[in-house]
Amino acid sequence: MSAPEDERLARVVLSRVVEPGDVRTTGLAAELGATRLLEVLRADDTDHTLLTDLESRAGPVDPVRELERAARLGIRFVIPGDAEWPAGLEDLAWAQPVQERGGVPLGLWVKGEMRLDELAGSLAIVGSRTATSYGGAVAAELAAAGARAGVPVVSGAAYGIDQAGHRGALAAGGRTVAVLACGVDRPYPSGHKVLLDHIRNAGAVVSEAPVGWAPMRVRFLARNRLIAALTRATVVVEAALRSGALNTANWATRLNRTLLGVPGPVTSAPSQGVHQLIRSGAAGLVTSGEEVLESLGSAGAHLLTDPRGPERPRDRLTTRQQQVLDAVPVSRGASTDSIARAAGVGIREVHGALLRLQHWGFVRLDPVGWRLADQAHR
Amino acid sequence: MSAPEDERLARVVLSRVVEPGDVRTTGLAAELGATRLLEVLRADDTDHTLLTDLESRAGPVDPVRELERAARLGIRFVIPGDAEWPAGLEDLAWAQPVQERGGVPLGLWVKGEMRLDELAGSLAIVGSRTATSYGGAVAAELAAAGARAGVPVVSGAAYGIDQAGHRGALAAGGRTVAVLACGVDRPYPSGHKVLLDHIRNAGAVVSEAPVGWAPMRVRFLARNRLIAALTRATVVVEAALRSGALNTANWATRLNRTLLGVPGPVTSAPSQGVHQLIRSGAAGLVTSGEEVLESLGSAGAHLLTDPRGPERPRDRLTTRQQQVLDAVPVSRGASTDSIARAAGVGIREVHGALLRLQHWGFVRLDPVGWRLADQAHR
Repeated sequence: MSAPEDERLARVVLSRVVEPGDVRTTGLAAELGATRLLEVLRADDTDHTLLTDLESRAGPVDPVRELERAARLGIRFVIPGDAEWPAGLEDLAWAQPVQERGGVPLGLWVKGEMRLDELAGSLAIVGSRTATSYGGAVAAELAAAGARAGVPVVSGAAYGIDQAGHRGALAAGGRTVAVLACGVDRPYPSGHKVLLDHIRNAGAVVSEAPVGWAPMRVRFLARNRLIAALTRATVVVEAALRSGALNTANWATRLNRTLLGVPGPVTSAPSQGVHQLIRSGAAGLVTSGEEVLESLGSAGAHLLTDPRGPERPRDRLTTRQQQVLDAVPVSRGASTDSIARAAGVGIREVHGALLRLQHWGFVRLDPVGWRLADQAHR
Repeated sequence: MSAPEDERLARVVLSRVVEPGDVRTTGLAAELGATRLLEVLRADDTDHTLLTDLESRAGPVDPVRELERAARLGIRFVIPGDAEWPAGLEDLAWAQPVQERGGVPLGLWVKGEMRLDELAGSLAIVGSRTATSYGGAVAAELAAAGARAGVPVVSGAAYGIDQAGHRGALAAGGRTVAVLACGVDRPYPSGHKVLLDHIRNAGAVVSEAPVGWAPMRVRFLARNRLIAALTRATVVVEAALRSGALNTANWATRLNRTLLGVPGPVTSAPSQGVHQLIRSGAAGLVTSGEEVLESLGSAGAHLLTDPRGPERPRDRLTTRQQQVLDAVPVSRGASTDSIARAAGVGIREVHGALLRLQHWGFVRLDPVGWRLADQAHR
């Protein structure tokens, strides 16, 4: 299955003239389709802003040549309607924008053979560029655990936690995907040229920005929403209080994705942002790859339930215990004394029986006295 | 105000013949009073267990001599009804026992001038005996922050986190209380003899066990419930997965006290128990003395609320924005297209207005389209 060709060409044009994640364009393109949107833009003479942008930026764009040029570099342009279009990106349609960035991307420029729809169930590992060796080691270990379980690892190819996540997945023979803020033909950061080659070979390098575009601040903000949207869970390994990784975390929350955080020493600045996410309830605390996989597998299944004593059916009680239980009022509390009188049993024996019955969940001790627990009505 | 003298003497007798926190005794003593309980024990010929214990253990106890002997060592016996009896201990009456330990203590043996009722609003700092230097430093800092704010610090005088908590409070000139599993005349552990002298001078040393009794496993379990009950919040600084500090944490939960945990490296065994408490939702994550004090001050007040854009009253909107807003349906989603038609405004201008209105909280974008946010009905 593949999207109509005129729609692809219209999206190439739009992709080259508007910023990634520009909410003015992504929303209308998703709703109207790019072909119709281009018509509207060309016809709408009440507002020239975007057309002016378009003309001053690029002059006329030849989308066929753009696609050919990309193809020569091993780069394809994946758009909604293509078989490999990742369903998760559609959630961006209804998520509230952040700093005017948001919406379903017009398309993704992709280098690498991995199909993007195989990212369903994948894991984002993000964090500080200035990670500690502790953070790097944990990120690599979590990524390796994901890789061993067949879970692709998505990150942003930056220094610090990002690269540790990619490398951990690669070392374990797993698949990994880098989502860039610049064109996928550009090695950024330049020190990661070889790493990006490895990532492309073991997965894919992906960007909303067209071939040749440079990384810019606003493009990182747009990129972060893709990392959250492409994955099922985002784990933040280290992030200082103003780290860009918190922007990705914010997107994970907006997209109802699972958000996880790895704690660290409270004396370590790169852990402070993570601790704040956990404190506020935005992120769950994880300490191991096993716990991360558990969260990926079934959201909420890892929540502990209150430990309770085993329920014992009433007929396994001794006759004496049943006598005492029968003397405990259903709704109002009674003193041990009055239960002893009602049961015709000595007070110390009654007290011992009540403690066993409490342990088994038959009776409760309220401030006003003993009464039946709810389950004892059965 | 002080409790009746016969009641005090009966409690001295019971205190010397039953184990601290023995649920068979604490419950009946709280309900009947110790004087009546002693009568019952002496009269009840259907069950000789406790009386047999009593006789074999101690022979006849002379409570007046016991109190005199304690007084010579600077030790008093505080019981329910005394002015300084801490109200928090009464919560033990309804909390479910753990391993047959529970209930309001018969009384507390106290050495030190601090009144026990001044522990309302105090902070327990507990954790592993085999703490790391990180854990010790954090415990001392949290204790010092408590001390500077006038909050007494309660702990168990053990090696590791306990001693760091006491020392942090002492160094900051604050009050601190040690709750022991042995008699308050015994320096335990023996390496903390000088520390215990300092604690007594700056607060008090307290125990449910009578003068002369040795520390035993079951007495530590009983002691832990007192640390939780005497304080408003318990913070666990480091605790391995089977640490005794988790027993204190469990009591804090049973008593509806605030339970807090300090995270650490996930690679550090003494942090694993704390991480589990936070993961399960039993403990809140804290990273500083400020956060601990915030939790002490008003439980729940530190919970973050969802960040939202500022609410703008409708009359501050431009005429165009009001036109668009008027065209957004109340309950069912509508496309930008249909809103544009309804408003008689160009589609790109409508889209821009909708994004502003969304940012201000007037409209929401659902999977099916734009609709009014709840607050826009006003």
